[in-house]
Amino acid sequence: MRRALETSRSQNFAEWYQEVVRRSDMAETSAVRGCMVIKPWGYGIWELIQQQLDQRFKETGHENCYFPLFIPLDFIAKEAEHVEGFAKEMAVVTHHRLKAIDGELVPDPDAKLTEPLIVRPTSETIIADSFRNWISSYRDLPVLVNQWANVVRWEMRTRLFLRTAEFLWQEGHTAHIDREDAIEETMRMLEVYREFAETVMAMPVIAGEKTENERFPGADNTYSIEAMMQDGKALQAGTSHYLGTHFAQAQDIKYQAADGTEKYAHTTSWGVSTRLIGGLIMTHGDDDGLRVPPALAPHQIVILPRLRGEEGDAKVLDYCRQLRSELVVQSALGARLRVNVDSKDRGASNKRWDWVRRGAPILLEIGPREIENGQVSYLRRDVLYEGEKIKSTAVNHADFVGLAASLLEEIQKNLYDEAKTRLQSRIKIGIDSMAALSGYFGEADSEDEEGVSTSGASDLGWARVAWCKPTGKKLEEVEAMLAPLKLTIRNVPLDQPTAFGKCIFTGEPAVEEIFIARAY
Amino acid sequence: MRRALETSRSQNFAEWYQEVVRRSDMAETSAVRGCMVIKPWGYGIWELIQQQLDQRFKETGHENCYFPLFIPLDFIAKEAEHVEGFAKEMAVVTHHRLKAIDGELVPDPDAKLTEPLIVRPTSETIIADSFRNWISSYRDLPVLVNQWANVVRWEMRTRLFLRTAEFLWQEGHTAHIDREDAIEETMRMLEVYREFAETVMAMPVIAGEKTENERFPGADNTYSIEAMMQDGKALQAGTSHYLGTHFAQAQDIKYQAADGTEKYAHTTSWGVSTRLIGGLIMTHGDDDGLRVPPALAPHQIVILPRLRGEEGDAKVLDYCRQLRSELVVQSALGARLRVNVDSKDRGASNKRWDWVRRGAPILLEIGPREIENGQVSYLRRDVLYEGEKIKSTAVNHADFVGLAASLLEEIQKNLYDEAKTRLQSRIKIGIDSMAALSGYFGEADSEDEEGVSTSGASDLGWARVAWCKPTGKKLEEVEAMLAPLKLTIRNVPLDQPTAFGKCIFTGEPAVEEIFIARAY
Repeated sequence: MRRALETSRSQNFAEWYQEVVRRSDMAETSAVRGCMVIKPWGYGIWELIQQQLDQRFKETGHENCYFPLFIPLDFIAKEAEHVEGFAKEMAVVTHHRLKAIDGELVPDPDAKLTEPLIVRPTSETIIADSFRNWISSYRDLPVLVNQWANVVRWEMRTRLFLRTAEFLWQEGHTAHIDREDAIEETMRMLEVYREFAETVMAMPVIAGEKTENERFPGADNTYSIEAMMQDGKALQAGTSHYLGTHFAQAQDIKYQAADGTEKYAHTTSWGVSTRLIGGLIMTHGDDDGLRVPPALAPHQIVILPRLRGEEGDAKVLDYCRQLRSELVVQSALGARLRVNVDSKDRGASNKRWDWVRRGAPILLEIGPREIENGQVSYLRRDVLYEGEKIKSTAVNHADFVGLAASLLEEIQKNLYDEAKTRLQSRIKIGIDSMAALSGYFGEADSEDEEGVSTSGASDLGWARVAWCKPTGKKLEEVEAMLAPLKLTIRNVPLDQPTAFGKCIFTGEPAVEEIFIARAY
Repeated sequence: MRRALETSRSQNFAEWYQEVVRRSDMAETSAVRGCMVIKPWGYGIWELIQQQLDQRFKETGHENCYFPLFIPLDFIAKEAEHVEGFAKEMAVVTHHRLKAIDGELVPDPDAKLTEPLIVRPTSETIIADSFRNWISSYRDLPVLVNQWANVVRWEMRTRLFLRTAEFLWQEGHTAHIDREDAIEETMRMLEVYREFAETVMAMPVIAGEKTENERFPGADNTYSIEAMMQDGKALQAGTSHYLGTHFAQAQDIKYQAADGTEKYAHTTSWGVSTRLIGGLIMTHGDDDGLRVPPALAPHQIVILPRLRGEEGDAKVLDYCRQLRSELVVQSALGARLRVNVDSKDRGASNKRWDWVRRGAPILLEIGPREIENGQVSYLRRDVLYEGEKIKSTAVNHADFVGLAASLLEEIQKNLYDEAKTRLQSRIKIGIDSMAALSGYFGEADSEDEEGVSTSGASDLGWARVAWCKPTGKKLEEVEAMLAPLKLTIRNVPLDQPTAFGKCIFTGEPAVEEIFIARAY
């Protein structure tokens, strides 16, 4: 059976991923190493991610700001763990002018900066500098801000959306009177991410805490949401950090408490990025391309007029535009329907397959026959086939208009249910030793240089096991046992049982359960 | 009479501007030279500018994309005029890693880039590189994209919003089959800017073409909208460029025409930036701070409960929140009302003056007396005084709810009318010689190092004069005559009479009218 992509997920998951990105017209590599061009269909999805997250941030009391792209070198140097974590992969600006020397354009030696500037890899340090100025009394707290920005982390191995030198993200930054209030914020935003991922992206996730070795550089606690991709690997899709007073001490963010004493503020930060789009692809894509959940589809319904380059075409186009105007006043998933009439001068079959690959949730095909019968024919992208044939359903024009919103909501739910079933069916429980773990995961998959498996999507998933929560050197020993299998500890899920068995690494009594998986 | 700012416009316009920015809590300088921090009130205005422009871009057929922050050095070098225009003020990335050497963090000498990267000052060159890949046939045209992004132009003299090293903007980039189609796009977007400035920003502007020496580096034609600030100076508030085939030739953007021949695409670009917020301040600010037009106010109505730290407070707060819920379901200026209850723990008078300085269009003050009478008391920021006293109007609760939307629309119109009257009254016509021009403008104002006049707002404005449209060396001679007076040619307005007198510079027959003014 012929599919719309050349590579199937089961043949080669990594190549399949690249083909989806390219043929769904979402993004492409640029002339600048590691930087991508996000094309209209990909950027349209990102805009809908932004809008729906931004609404949630505002509803939880946050306001947007904008902080400088550049960070002075000594800001980075101030927080020791932060330096360690980021210093190795940053773009450094050293000059502020070019000059033609011997006919060649070069950085002007007379325009060297006294102190180099770093292109922000994240903004804790520069935002802490503002917080110091904004905060003097307990009355100024909490400070709750967010910014939508581009950040740069030099990456030698890049993959569109998943790992690029420049990416787009949001970073929330907050300051609080004490640990309790800051932890409450940290957990609130983790929950915002979980709810957003599941409701809007139709991507089920596990929320939990990262181990001490996987914390953000400079954090006391790091929490994540982890999603399971179709090859069974985990994708860290969002993080929320309680930063304690590390950045407050480094940048001197103090306030006068109600009792008159001077205290350090407790800060948090939390972020998600364009990496989410990579997660979307590997959660919902199939062998025909992407399937975009309706809540994130720039066009939820694409109307394809069957044009023949003859005078009947005008009537077909009119019918399509009329249909569009009836649909756009309907609402689904909390917003007006987004409907596009694709009247481009291209063959009907090419257009159909382009939109299948892009993953528009519903395609309507309208030709003279439909108009004559007062009908529309539609394809649902989530269930494209009936047996080996494309399933096209003909319904009355008016019935479709009445049905469209609930159809979109059904597709949204269907995509979520499918992903949820996969996640649940691939969580392996009952593993009680390192040997059993090793037996379950077997040999590490082969991978391409960007760390994406080049073998087909496996049926493996994640193991949920009990452990004794070792720290320091003992934790490193555990990581060293997992490394040859390319396994990592994903997180300690918030949802824990009341009793535990034995630690699979040491045999000691366990204190909590963790997820172990291969990961992006 | 005491006002909410320390400096009045008539005392010192430059200092007044700085005080407005600072005390309206819109932005502040950062630790990075030339880069600003945009605070929630300033960023909230920018978000509303973005939303309302973005809607207009989409309605005119454009889609958003995202292109790399970095531009390879040789891209800049390819288009000769473009280099000349931008090479002198760019941030240059030369290293991709830091290293601790002798305890000091420095750019790692082993991580020097083979080719330096430029932080984009504008994106024509890198976008042209994508256009080359996207365009092969006339069927692919037009390409109509836009991006919202940060750009960097190294500035030694900075002023918040007006001139900063990093600023936020949008840049539209389009490619067309021929000159006619590209010019049509150029003019369409100029008109979008004009309509947006006047309708949304309540800022009347003059749309026209820049002279050949004021064109964008690499453009065939540059058009601008120019707004008159309260000190009589002009602010270039937006530009739209027809780029001819310059960038198409430099980056080889060719297409196969319907007749089978190969042709260069014609491109355009157009942009506005956070500079608009500087224009907003200098158009609508007064001696009490900013006055934000309702269409751009993050909070259009701010409700100030008079709290006394006693048990009656809960009742006052409930009343305010109830009032808010009745107001937010109303619509004005095409959107739901934006209403804030400021329940912060601060004195009522401080809060009133904070919101006056920020320029919220309507302030509602609610205390036990208003509740008892079933009333609200409101202040209109556009007409704050009656004689020397603050004008507070008491109306029935229900009447205010019914009135609020039309009140906001009236304020929007009132701010526009005020600015329009000023613009019209300060356009000097009838000047027929260079001597008369010199006599009208007199001595150049004193200015601070950022080029903002330090004298008070003058009653001078712009001169509309006729000229013979000299080019080349003759145009330079005209500019040299204007330079000592700090005058520049702003633009050639689209709206022209049918007959002209003599050129004020040469005495020859004139062919068009131009605006001459001092400018930011």
